[in-house]
Amino acid sequence: MAARIRTDGLTEKEWSDLRKETSAIVARLNAARAETPYRDLPSREALSQRGRVLESVRKKKGKFDDVVILGIGGSALGLTALKTALRPPFWNLLGARQRGKHPRLWVMDNVDPAEFAAMLEWIDPKRTLFNVISKSGETAETMSQFLVALDLLEDCVGKKWRGHVVVTTDARKGTLRPLAEAEGLESFTVPDGVGGRFSVLSPVGLFGAAMIGIDIEGLLAGAAEMDKRCAAAAFEANPAAEGAAVQIGLYRKGKVMSIMMPYAAALKDVADWYRQLWAESLGKMRADGTAVGPTPIKALGVTDQHSQVQLYREGPNDKVVTILGVEEFGAEVPLPEAPEHLKGLEYLSGRTMKELLKAEEKATAWALAISKRPTVQITLDKVSPPAVGALLQMLMVQTSIAGEMLGINTYNQPGVEAGKQAAMALMGKTGAIPSPTSKGLPAEATSYENLRRQIEKEAD
Amino acid sequence: MAARIRTDGLTEKEWSDLRKETSAIVARLNAARAETPYRDLPSREALSQRGRVLESVRKKKGKFDDVVILGIGGSALGLTALKTALRPPFWNLLGARQRGKHPRLWVMDNVDPAEFAAMLEWIDPKRTLFNVISKSGETAETMSQFLVALDLLEDCVGKKWRGHVVVTTDARKGTLRPLAEAEGLESFTVPDGVGGRFSVLSPVGLFGAAMIGIDIEGLLAGAAEMDKRCAAAAFEANPAAEGAAVQIGLYRKGKVMSIMMPYAAALKDVADWYRQLWAESLGKMRADGTAVGPTPIKALGVTDQHSQVQLYREGPNDKVVTILGVEEFGAEVPLPEAPEHLKGLEYLSGRTMKELLKAEEKATAWALAISKRPTVQITLDKVSPPAVGALLQMLMVQTSIAGEMLGINTYNQPGVEAGKQAAMALMGKTGAIPSPTSKGLPAEATSYENLRRQIEKEAD
Repeated sequence: MAARIRTDGLTEKEWSDLRKETSAIVARLNAARAETPYRDLPSREALSQRGRVLESVRKKKGKFDDVVILGIGGSALGLTALKTALRPPFWNLLGARQRGKHPRLWVMDNVDPAEFAAMLEWIDPKRTLFNVISKSGETAETMSQFLVALDLLEDCVGKKWRGHVVVTTDARKGTLRPLAEAEGLESFTVPDGVGGRFSVLSPVGLFGAAMIGIDIEGLLAGAAEMDKRCAAAAFEANPAAEGAAVQIGLYRKGKVMSIMMPYAAALKDVADWYRQLWAESLGKMRADGTAVGPTPIKALGVTDQHSQVQLYREGPNDKVVTILGVEEFGAEVPLPEAPEHLKGLEYLSGRTMKELLKAEEKATAWALAISKRPTVQITLDKVSPPAVGALLQMLMVQTSIAGEMLGINTYNQPGVEAGKQAAMALMGKTGAIPSPTSKGLPAEATSYENLRRQIEKEAD
Repeated sequence: MAARIRTDGLTEKEWSDLRKETSAIVARLNAARAETPYRDLPSREALSQRGRVLESVRKKKGKFDDVVILGIGGSALGLTALKTALRPPFWNLLGARQRGKHPRLWVMDNVDPAEFAAMLEWIDPKRTLFNVISKSGETAETMSQFLVALDLLEDCVGKKWRGHVVVTTDARKGTLRPLAEAEGLESFTVPDGVGGRFSVLSPVGLFGAAMIGIDIEGLLAGAAEMDKRCAAAAFEANPAAEGAAVQIGLYRKGKVMSIMMPYAAALKDVADWYRQLWAESLGKMRADGTAVGPTPIKALGVTDQHSQVQLYREGPNDKVVTILGVEEFGAEVPLPEAPEHLKGLEYLSGRTMKELLKAEEKATAWALAISKRPTVQITLDKVSPPAVGALLQMLMVQTSIAGEMLGINTYNQPGVEAGKQAAMALMGKTGAIPSPTSKGLPAEATSYENLRRQIEKEAD
């Protein structure tokens, strides 16, 4: 993985200060590995559970046509990124042979009734495996999906339903663990201290990935190697430190948006995964009451040149654009000669689609640079399991460093709680809410009934 | 279509000034309809060509299994929005019967070789129709795709290739029109003065939509009715004026990002289409050299509650969130009772997935409001052709009003030109560049060879 940073907008003095700042943070993070257990996922079998995952997948070979993931947020985005990156395009459209007999994969990360009903009509429950993923087992969206899935399985396969469910949840706590134990369901553990958005290399991402034939050992090996690089004290040798320095350095100078723009369709959902990682980790209220956090934005080259680049080049200079490139694609499309009546396209004939994509990427980086818009270019040799593992690990460590630079808690998400409680109240949950203000609710919301009344009044 | 605006962050005085400002703009736009020909697409047959589109589609019934759109930016985003909104989920996965014998639809808006090659392997050229869409016929990405498609057709169907191509381009100018005329290809016209991002209700969007069975007459009827509403002088009766007032009013007060967050999977690509419309229209350099333009961001409820809402509520108060809701979904999913060992989910049993989705929507709007984050709520009765037509037309007129408020040219995109020229240079185009600075290029770039040398030097 190579990176090129155009630090337009940062002076040499600022860059040198950022180097010192991030070096100190890297040293602190190295000394406190227990604070970031996600970093050990690639190297510690007990955390990644890769052996059990592989064994489980081996036993299921040929038994399922469809795997349905029930999960939302961090329980869905990592696996979707892996699927889009490391499986052929249009995976669910391919025939079984083209999929190497691996199942289709449906990552259901919403409760849209039209979409969920369409998926249910599509699958054959007798040949479907459901993997429900929720650390707490209390996520209303995921648990709703799970209730529907259990009911469907009972109707279609009766007592054999247990063989169609895999549970991924907390080791001890929560709602799902007791069910898994009482019913003897196969289960994996979301490791302690690993939040959803840092869990892609745990069974949360690995099980689904292995089910569709992704080489999870390659993925983890790439991540493990990258994690070592991200522990390096020397700034230039540590891509996560360099990345955090440029992102947060520019954020402090008014570049409030961080755009991730892959020039490879395979990486488009890595940008979506990054969007959660960056937003939910860094968008925070500091202890002193200051609201901070760059806004991550996903884009896609070449497509968004015809949608967003006008704004990026001539609109306010408040963005940093990360261009995520790839040197080698798995396929090549030669451009043939233009027919008789099609003029002015001679420059394309004899070239390839990849050459055009790379020319557009280079041209966009150049066009942004001449407009003094700061850019970061990250380039992968190819979209392979080790390269993707390395990229994800680098972006996670970059986030940890960025959180320290911003002086916030990178690993919580207090701003989500009030909405969750409000949705439960609206769904008819009853009973006391012990300390409402600690959940971001108004002090009067001492019960779900009170909270519901208050929301309904507001809505009038 | 109902709208509710929580104008936190705008004083009554500001709101009243915005009302006057937009009323004057609406009057001016009404008096100068010729400046905005897109507004007449729903009402003028000659512009929308709906009759010819319907006749053409009728003749093709049953002849094609796949329709492939070759287009990028405004030639792709509108149709994708229509497909996702108005066809069942997972359209391309469905069998012919479930699709009502309508073809699958592939909107190819990129030149990723892996993705394009996978599509080519998937389709059977003998049963495929290619619709190439480019106003100038010079868009490098689209024309590259078209060269490949023509070559493939020649190999597979020989002289019958003409029956597999529909051209959508300028009436007289450009590269594609001469080909269409010389070869007698079926063609549609991108109407004069209608730019890509305002072209969804021209044959650019209508032909593909009609091919997959979308009721384009309903779509146009809804848009026509909305266009009348958007000409109303009375502010409260004009949703486009109200929408522009709140968006730009808040932008001027530091809300530099405009988030479009549908709570319906069907509307997620309307958010993506809006992203181009808003960014490319408003992200501009003013004549006085000031760079302006809010940054549009697409999000999706409920999914992004678990990804972005932490940032929206506790991060910097620099965003306005538009929540796009739907009252009726085409399907319903009842939530059954929880099984024995699954505790604490009683509040879900007996409710429905739609109720949960609506509760989450309401809870999020409320949670944003208690954090003093401004929101706009737009609600459709259901995702029908007239409702979608109305929504798209409203958002286009809102953009025209917003452009006037910002004092920029809403309809050009000068910032894209330099990158296009640079890409052509890198692809080996040769010859003089008459007035390079008018294309946003450095003065030295008097030829493509010079330009290429300069970019290569930069890249070292």
